[in-house]
Amino acid sequence: MTPSRLELVVDFADCDPARVVFYPRYFNWFDRATERLFRERGLPWPQLWAQYRLAGFPIVDAGAKFLGPSRFGDRIVVESWIDEWRSKLFLTRHRVHNGGSVVVEGHELRVWALRDPADPESMKAGPVPEEIRQRFRD
Amino acid sequence: MTPSRLELVVDFADCDPARVVFYPRYFNWFDRATERLFRERGLPWPQLWAQYRLAGFPIVDAGAKFLGPSRFGDRIVVESWIDEWRSKLFLTRHRVHNGGSVVVEGHELRVWALRDPADPESMKAGPVPEEIRQRFRD
Amino acid sequence: MTPSRLELVVDFADCDPARVVFYPRYFNWFDRATERLFRERGLPWPQLWAQYRLAGFPIVDAGAKFLGPSRFGDRIVVESWIDEWRSKLFLTRHRVHNGGSVVVEGHELRVWALRDPADPESMKAGPVPEEIRQRFRD
Amino acid sequence: MTPSRLELVVDFADCDPARVVFYPRYFNWFDRATERLFRERGLPWPQLWAQYRLAGFPIVDAGAKFLGPSRFGDRIVVESWIDEWRSKLFLTRHRVHNGGSVVVEGHELRVWALRDPADPESMKAGPVPEEIRQRFRD
Repeated sequence: MTPSRLELVVDFADCDPARVVFYPRYFNWFDRATERLFRERGLPWPQLWAQYRLAGFPIVDAGAKFLGPSRFGDRIVVESWIDEWRSKLFLTRHRVHNGGSVVVEGHELRVWALRDPADPESMKAGPVPEEIRQRFRD
Repeated sequence: MTPSRLELVVDFADCDPARVVFYPRYFNWFDRATERLFRERGLPWPQLWAQYRLAGFPIVDAGAKFLGPSRFGDRIVVESWIDEWRSKLFLTRHRVHNGGSVVVEGHELRVWALRDPADPESMKAGPVPEEIRQRFRD
Repeated sequence: MTPSRLELVVDFADCDPARVVFYPRYFNWFDRATERLFRERGLPWPQLWAQYRLAGFPIVDAGAKFLGPSRFGDRIVVESWIDEWRSKLFLTRHRVHNGGSVVVEGHELRVWALRDPADPESMKAGPVPEEIRQRFRD
Repeated sequence: MTPSRLELVVDFADCDPARVVFYPRYFNWFDRATERLFRERGLPWPQLWAQYRLAGFPIVDAGAKFLGPSRFGDRIVVESWIDEWRSKLFLTRHRVHNGGSVVVEGHELRVWALRDPADPESMKAGPVPEEIRQRFRD
């Protein structure tokens, strides 16, 4: 599939005392980029969750390699795509570009989690519907 | 070494619309827990950084496996320790306990990064001093 | 009433490139301190909200005066109390102490907001029950 | 002056368990919007701070009135402008629009804070240069 692109300026609000992006913030951007992936394919999360009685897309595994810094004021791009669909899971990959270099490579493995009608506080993994996968074909 | 323990209540401020901890927050806690590890061994970061002309401990690799949720109001414990010292790197591991279960297992690989006196904006990896490693022996 | 006290060390994770607390974080602490106020009086939010069919305590007005900085590594205390009960609102005040000085004075005006059984997405202000006010008498 | 506009979609990452924007996040947006105000006038903070030996623009007073919610998925606009220049201070105002209504009105009073060459950890208020004010004339 064609990756989605999230263009950002590294704000003062993103940086730590070392004047680089505070690392947990990349995971915050990964979450936003994943939401954006769906939104760009006509599947905004609030409507999607209501329609499929989803409780959300909880994370099973997340990680990142940090190859270089992003400094206060840098213009960066977070490139994101769904790399793999498993029966009840999907794997999102993210690549952060800064001035011609890849500075971060990350991933998130998420569950297609359905609300349990019998217990609003709990959730259980369900199969990803075929029409959803279709939306990410190209 | 004996792990450090950070006891927390999962506040409203930590949770997302699914009423569980918003996952990037765990990495925020990992960062705090790592800082605490040093503080508890008599090595608070602000003093330590000034003394050794450190620019900080930037992350090379971070990741986590999420085995269960932490919900709004839960009492959790983040258990942290330095698992490995390499010449210019150290590996911190974190285990989040919630009601008798391990719900998250994470790690951070960090650089002992020295300030470059010639260029205040840049940093370079340096060897971890032996007296620092000593502090984490038991 | 006796103020509640939240003792904190200003972590690396709380600071901005100026090496002081990033100001929106104080409002995050105010939110946590308000939750703690209730918890300390035997009224943890998750149970309280379920019991009274509350949607939460949304903010109508919030503000702070910043009289001095809190730096990376400082030990600070957030002192909080409910200053005023109105029929459907309550006013929380917060005072941040750092090394003998008051460095921040803040407030939050919040609504006692009930869930509307007819519409789970909406909420409306309701009267604060007398037994709740009682808990904050002394 | 013509207000600056920051267009946003309220992401999952911005919301709390009540499925509305977690209120401290508005102050985070105010900080970003203020930075953007300068950037749009050709005054990006990293360069500006280096050029004028600024330590930053610390906050003296901040506040907001919350007139309505912003929910998960809403498209909002943060409109921002500098409302007043005082000798060593400036007042930024922010208005958040959501679907035709103003939902938040906020302000930040900030200091033009110079680095003290004798003590890199401290800062002191200085007069705002006339050429800076000029940039915000229209």
